[in-house]
Amino acid sequence: MISADKVDGKLFLEESKRLVDGLLDKYLPPESADPVRIHEAMRYSVLAGGKRVRPIIADASYRYCCGNESQKEETIYKAMTAIELVHTYSLIHDDLPCMDDDNLRRGILTCHKKFGEAVAVLAGDALHDVAFSLMAQTNSPIAVVELAQAIGTSGMIGGQIADIESEGKVLTEDEIISIHNRKTGALIRCSVRIGAILAGATELELKKLTEFGEKIGLAFQIVDDLLDIQGDQELLGKETGSDSKKQKATYPGVTGKKEAREIANKLINEAISLLDNKEDNMLNFLAEYIGQREN
Amino acid sequence: MISADKVDGKLFLEESKRLVDGLLDKYLPPESADPVRIHEAMRYSVLAGGKRVRPIIADASYRYCCGNESQKEETIYKAMTAIELVHTYSLIHDDLPCMDDDNLRRGILTCHKKFGEAVAVLAGDALHDVAFSLMAQTNSPIAVVELAQAIGTSGMIGGQIADIESEGKVLTEDEIISIHNRKTGALIRCSVRIGAILAGATELELKKLTEFGEKIGLAFQIVDDLLDIQGDQELLGKETGSDSKKQKATYPGVTGKKEAREIANKLINEAISLLDNKEDNMLNFLAEYIGQREN
Repeated sequence: MISADKVDGKLFLEESKRLVDGLLDKYLPPESADPVRIHEAMRYSVLAGGKRVRPIIADASYRYCCGNESQKEETIYKAMTAIELVHTYSLIHDDLPCMDDDNLRRGILTCHKKFGEAVAVLAGDALHDVAFSLMAQTNSPIAVVELAQAIGTSGMIGGQIADIESEGKVLTEDEIISIHNRKTGALIRCSVRIGAILAGATELELKKLTEFGEKIGLAFQIVDDLLDIQGDQELLGKETGSDSKKQKATYPGVTGKKEAREIANKLINEAISLLDNKEDNMLNFLAEYIGQREN
Repeated sequence: MISADKVDGKLFLEESKRLVDGLLDKYLPPESADPVRIHEAMRYSVLAGGKRVRPIIADASYRYCCGNESQKEETIYKAMTAIELVHTYSLIHDDLPCMDDDNLRRGILTCHKKFGEAVAVLAGDALHDVAFSLMAQTNSPIAVVELAQAIGTSGMIGGQIADIESEGKVLTEDEIISIHNRKTGALIRCSVRIGAILAGATELELKKLTEFGEKIGLAFQIVDDLLDIQGDQELLGKETGSDSKKQKATYPGVTGKKEAREIANKLINEAISLLDNKEDNMLNFLAEYIGQREN
């Protein structure tokens, strides 16, 4: 197991977050352009902050697979933006009153609380469109299909409806894993894969990274469940205890907190063991970060 | 002006509708697959009928531009399906209580009335994804960008929010045209363009067909407004008089019915005059059909 250099890793995270924020600002339509209200809502939700974990993972995967540095603007940067826009669209729709009915997201009012439901639905839809337009601009139809499948009914949407339908029910560990893999895991796995695909990874690299993505994706959601129980509301920017309030099925709810933490650690270690010892290996750091994060 | 052969045209419409219905059935996930409820809702809304005008236009445009007959399965058929799925997704979201709050669509209950709001939002989102996946499978990133732009904030979504925001207001003719061009026109224009792009049309052909698409797109919505005033509810499959009930801005509302009809006819004639006299010219027939349709 490679031990990531913590200082470099932290710097990488900060720089990457700044990079992603810059890309999002660059590719989102300006607020001054018509329809102003929708553009305001899109920018409000996207630029409210967030860890930008998914695009940072995609970038790290691209670097890990030795993607061409001089082509980043036309390929991975657009893909990274697309992935974060898709993530935000899904949050906006998931927060709607007919779904999770949340008031706070990233420390501020949710989109529909701030702009009304009609604007929130349309802002989510519009982010969905900008995302696919950007992904297509990488000139890789495979990356577009990859994204569409990760967030469709066999991925994210399937996980979201299963999550809603499981409220108040007692689930098995396998059922929870199935929901988590789709609701959160699919987009994280897709981020790793798209970075690799755009870098021109070999079949073997892609296979290993897919497994890596699945493991960190599941670990990410287990840690999310743990943070909802014992996290710092201010650090998280959203209400804690909401899973329990909504009778959501969670991993620690089935296994207990201690075992959930152990499983998360195990998944992270297994993920890291799939990586080669490369010089530019921020994937290693990101896996550790996902296991240990506090927000 | 070319006079379309009515018999051939009618046969073409019927055969094309059957073709589109078959493609939709083929490319939609089966109801038996998990998540069943979302797949049911997707199929319910997409297969409820509908004129399939947009994909039929795309097909006619592909044929008009002499697109390769042997490549239709991998190109235009997927694009046609994508376009109809996007159209249905937009109807599902537009019908939501927070938007137009409609109960009937294509003669049956709207998606949220039948399946609930959460499922309707997610079914719309999922159709959006399948559409982009299919469009990417044509292997034309340009077609994906074209679709995303047509239905984004500078197109369909821009028109939908302008339409909602204009409720109860008195608009000028130019303002109505601007809403209609975006809300309905953009996707029809895009259907013509994508058919031409996938067929490998020349720049000049594409330019002329773009203008053709703009004209029939605006005419389509003006006729829609007229049908809402004086159409047959049973033929239409939705409640008539709903524009007036919701104080929607409509073209005949500004110009009067007689002038609206005249403008629609003028647009259709202008559109047809842009076409060359080709043997396979169902675009001509479709333009006439759009001007004269009763549902």
